[in-house]
Amino acid sequence: MSEPKAKGTLIIIGGAEDKNADKTILKTFIAATGKNNPDIALVTTATNSPVKAAEVYEDILSQLGAKTVHPIHISSREDTSDSDNIEILKSADGIFFVGGDQLRISSILGGTDAHKAIRESYLSGRVIAGTSAGASMMSEIMVVEGKDDEAPRKCTLKMAPGMGLLEGVIIDQHFNQRGRIGRLLAAVAPNPSVLGIGIDEDTAIIVDSDMNFKVAGSGVVTVIDGKTIRYTNISEQNQNEPLAITNVMLHVLPSGYGFNIINRIEITKEDKKADPNGKDNKEEAK
Amino acid sequence: MSEPKAKGTLIIIGGAEDKNADKTILKTFIAATGKNNPDIALVTTATNSPVKAAEVYEDILSQLGAKTVHPIHISSREDTSDSDNIEILKSADGIFFVGGDQLRISSILGGTDAHKAIRESYLSGRVIAGTSAGASMMSEIMVVEGKDDEAPRKCTLKMAPGMGLLEGVIIDQHFNQRGRIGRLLAAVAPNPSVLGIGIDEDTAIIVDSDMNFKVAGSGVVTVIDGKTIRYTNISEQNQNEPLAITNVMLHVLPSGYGFNIINRIEITKEDKKADPNGKDNKEEAK
Repeated sequence: MSEPKAKGTLIIIGGAEDKNADKTILKTFIAATGKNNPDIALVTTATNSPVKAAEVYEDILSQLGAKTVHPIHISSREDTSDSDNIEILKSADGIFFVGGDQLRISSILGGTDAHKAIRESYLSGRVIAGTSAGASMMSEIMVVEGKDDEAPRKCTLKMAPGMGLLEGVIIDQHFNQRGRIGRLLAAVAPNPSVLGIGIDEDTAIIVDSDMNFKVAGSGVVTVIDGKTIRYTNISEQNQNEPLAITNVMLHVLPSGYGFNIINRIEITKEDKKADPNGKDNKEEAK
Repeated sequence: MSEPKAKGTLIIIGGAEDKNADKTILKTFIAATGKNNPDIALVTTATNSPVKAAEVYEDILSQLGAKTVHPIHISSREDTSDSDNIEILKSADGIFFVGGDQLRISSILGGTDAHKAIRESYLSGRVIAGTSAGASMMSEIMVVEGKDDEAPRKCTLKMAPGMGLLEGVIIDQHFNQRGRIGRLLAAVAPNPSVLGIGIDEDTAIIVDSDMNFKVAGSGVVTVIDGKTIRYTNISEQNQNEPLAITNVMLHVLPSGYGFNIINRIEITKEDKKADPNGKDNKEEAK
């Protein structure tokens, strides 16, 4: 789906972000709004325990400076036209999606006025963040279901259309913690034009309007670039046989590193140091 | 360590090979000896339950045609010079290492007469197989310890010298089942001249004397080729920070596919079909 160039920021979190110690990622979310005391809309659609989830995030985000945290408890398609909710989504400095089931987000919000308000908020320069299911739903195609700790297989992977905020990628979360390289490889193999991005727990990518992302948090982001694939048997193999995929390019990026989604090139700390405003990069023998 | 060109076959198994249904991998081991009723030496050094392990494999290997299965219960360095054991290792058509702790194998057998007998058996054209710990020990450097389902980290990975039967690679086992891509990446990053080979459960590589391997079993083999690495922070990062590694080449190979360890090139089923003795490769629309 083609759309006007996004002007906002996406913060895509691999789940289980730290809520007790440094709170690095949630602080990054608040900071990205550009305000010390932003208004936050908290979308609880993914979870079956919306009130509980809202309490947790209201507490923390308020502690971190949020002026107001408005829970948006949309749990059915009927709720999506509620004018109060739409107003809040349109006016909030940042929108945060809690975790749960990404299929709840897409099946309840997809194509509604609320969805439209969220897209417009993003295009107008606001910050949209999501954790776990709230991360998966960001892309046009999302992983809905797949086995953890398994070789790549067609039969165990289910995908569905996501919320379409980020084009050309497919996100997976809880990545190394749940052993999800197999399912992300199986998601990329059908069409290597899509970039696979696996985000660890307590780790996030911050995507700017030029489609550069940088990594924050305690884990890593694993990028699977299938453009170099020489061979895959995905179109011929039986559903329950494991996939063959050769010559996939892989990048592992911890905090401070980044990636350009368009050009598919990593951004290292050295690249920053080479910046005229950066510090000298002194090498030391040891 | 440089050595005369190996003439034998290595069968390196990712653990938990099927012992009840098709027994594909254990059949492959018997077949690789080139005899219908081979003499097998069963090395139980890796395990703390050698008698129990021996019973399991004696039963199955006998069912599959082995004439004799001699348990080699070497559990201390004193046992390694036992002339009966040495004779059996020297004369067996195939040697099979059971699973357990790879550090037991290397610390008990390393540099002994038994080790020498195993190497000579391999060089003279016999089959050496090992599962799980018995797989890890095959290479010159082996993974001894590391966390499962974790981002690549220096601090949690421990390596040690292995039994040196296979040069230029580092093996990991129970690969997708335990989420070990992180630890294998951390093992390859220090020196990308070493090829990382992650073998799933009930899956094996059969390595011939030209250093081609083919894959057998129900899972996949994940090959990590670091030669293309553009950047890693491994020499500068703090021990407990996750690694950055960019531009790693990855191959996923199920049963029937293979790889040349020297040239680092995959061998697909198509390569076989292109063989003049192979069948035509007819494409079908569907």
